[in-house]
Amino acid sequence: MRYIVAFAAFLMVSTSALAQDDPVVLVVHGGAGGNKKAMGPAVEKQCRDTMERALKAGRDAIDKGESLDGVEAAIKVLEDSGHFNAGKGAVFNRDGRQELNASIMDGKTRKAGAIAGICRVKNPIAACRVIMEKSGHVFMIGESAERYCKDQGVEMVSPLYFWTDRAWKELQSANAGAKKKAAGLPSPPERGAGGEGDPPHFGTVGAAARDRKGNLAAGTSTGGITYVRPGRVGDSPIIGAGTYAENGVGAVSCTGKGELFIRHTVASDIAARMKYAGDSVNLAASKALNGLPKNPGGAGGIIAIDSKGNVATIFNTAGMFRGTITQSGKIWIAIDPD
Amino acid sequence: MRYIVAFAAFLMVSTSALAQDDPVVLVVHGGAGGNKKAMGPAVEKQCRDTMERALKAGRDAIDKGESLDGVEAAIKVLEDSGHFNAGKGAVFNRDGRQELNASIMDGKTRKAGAIAGICRVKNPIAACRVIMEKSGHVFMIGESAERYCKDQGVEMVSPLYFWTDRAWKELQSANAGAKKKAAGLPSPPERGAGGEGDPPHFGTVGAAARDRKGNLAAGTSTGGITYVRPGRVGDSPIIGAGTYAENGVGAVSCTGKGELFIRHTVASDIAARMKYAGDSVNLAASKALNGLPKNPGGAGGIIAIDSKGNVATIFNTAGMFRGTITQSGKIWIAIDPD
Repeated sequence: MRYIVAFAAFLMVSTSALAQDDPVVLVVHGGAGGNKKAMGPAVEKQCRDTMERALKAGRDAIDKGESLDGVEAAIKVLEDSGHFNAGKGAVFNRDGRQELNASIMDGKTRKAGAIAGICRVKNPIAACRVIMEKSGHVFMIGESAERYCKDQGVEMVSPLYFWTDRAWKELQSANAGAKKKAAGLPSPPERGAGGEGDPPHFGTVGAAARDRKGNLAAGTSTGGITYVRPGRVGDSPIIGAGTYAENGVGAVSCTGKGELFIRHTVASDIAARMKYAGDSVNLAASKALNGLPKNPGGAGGIIAIDSKGNVATIFNTAGMFRGTITQSGKIWIAIDPD
Repeated sequence: MRYIVAFAAFLMVSTSALAQDDPVVLVVHGGAGGNKKAMGPAVEKQCRDTMERALKAGRDAIDKGESLDGVEAAIKVLEDSGHFNAGKGAVFNRDGRQELNASIMDGKTRKAGAIAGICRVKNPIAACRVIMEKSGHVFMIGESAERYCKDQGVEMVSPLYFWTDRAWKELQSANAGAKKKAAGLPSPPERGAGGEGDPPHFGTVGAAARDRKGNLAAGTSTGGITYVRPGRVGDSPIIGAGTYAENGVGAVSCTGKGELFIRHTVASDIAARMKYAGDSVNLAASKALNGLPKNPGGAGGIIAIDSKGNVATIFNTAGMFRGTITQSGKIWIAIDPD
């Protein structure tokens, strides 16, 4: 298995000077299923453009507010784009429904909001923020959560809003695969969330931010896995698995085989390694990813930012859509392990 | 002087010898809302008897199988009893429904199963085990999860099975309180899950076990909070928050203000402190509980067992129903901080 620390070399060379003058304020990912060759140049450009818009929107929001605003703004752009498996771009489950999951965490207060199993909220990340700030709770699920969000003025849509031609085709393909499998014929593996057999570029999205005051925040949003069992929830809405933020330590968003990330509490494990073992953000993230049981095709990817503005973006898949933006607006975007 | 040293050495020897000869194999809790005075001797006896049965059932299951079997067997007894806020004894939410949440984790494989927002599964802890072993997933929610459990042969019941007189009275009382609050009159605080304003003895249940081979396992099961917002999920079904187990480190089950336990990833934080900072199980659990934001009336409690069989049972409430059983069957049960 290839194990990649894509951003490490860049960081080691330029971090100290950069971090002082023009630190990274936001890092985003678009899932660890990125494969440049398979997606082709046209789709790659759409995804890169979307990511650039997300980074700019996030940076602007951080400039006017704080890290939490940047995380929400960036993820909203990715959710609305339809180019990633979150929000508009969510995939169908085995019931032909799009069940959305997301979470957000504010490192300053260690408050968090999370939502799972919803089909009518346009921006799950916005719902998470409302739950965090208004409900007195952290985690809400299903139709009751939708009802609460609606009462709170969160933008609702018909489930049809999420019906894209791409998701439809993927469902048909997965359905055909399942029929083949049931008939004992060779079939493709389960798709989605950046795992093996994934479509070339669609994945969970996430963001981690650090503002001028050193406040950290993180968020993650997903549309699940095509043809997945209804009611299945991955790591994206789980604080400590898919998302974690703690001022003075780090902010983390994960993507990949959600079950592994839950079982190994990956996001909080990274923070714990930094807090208790003194690991750097990059070492902590690398160890956490490396500690997952090996799966063919890789387990996923991680983005993280520490309290000094050091960034880690790592993955053990063929590629991960990821990008950073600095305080002054300098953007870096990559897919391959380059 | 020499005499005293010799005596101390003897003590040290005999403690470790004891742990070797007849180690604790199972520790259980019945929520951190225990208050002996408020519950009265009759209810206390019922709860103690139930806990004793749970400990014995758990020990027997460990004897025939492994730690995971003990956790499931013990929690099943507590769920079935109606004396705790889990399974049969679950409380009503604001929709007049009992939404059950639970999780289980096997330290040997770090596999886990969790379920939330279900109303028709008799033993949520058994559903967790089925999800863990058969679904390929970790976490399933709502009616889809129920449907899956039913298909897998998990015992289903009508929602009416959970309708107890006690839960009904509590709902009425909470409802009346909410009406008073809405009218601007003094009202009691929100109840349940071992927090302030809780009924005297009902709480989330949990277990942590260590078998002869050193395999660790943990589980937690809850009926939520009386009059809570529908769709709210606490820490009980969250791996790393309410439940965590990892061979060579520890097994943990938490109870209390679920939101705090999620935000501070308490169960995995205890394991992380043991792994990365070298803390004992007792120190790690104490630090984790002390690290929670202070709330009037306390945040909750924790039970944990480490890879050597050392046990921690701590809480910052008036009391916590808790007990242990050794390999040979020696039982210890307590409520007060004594």
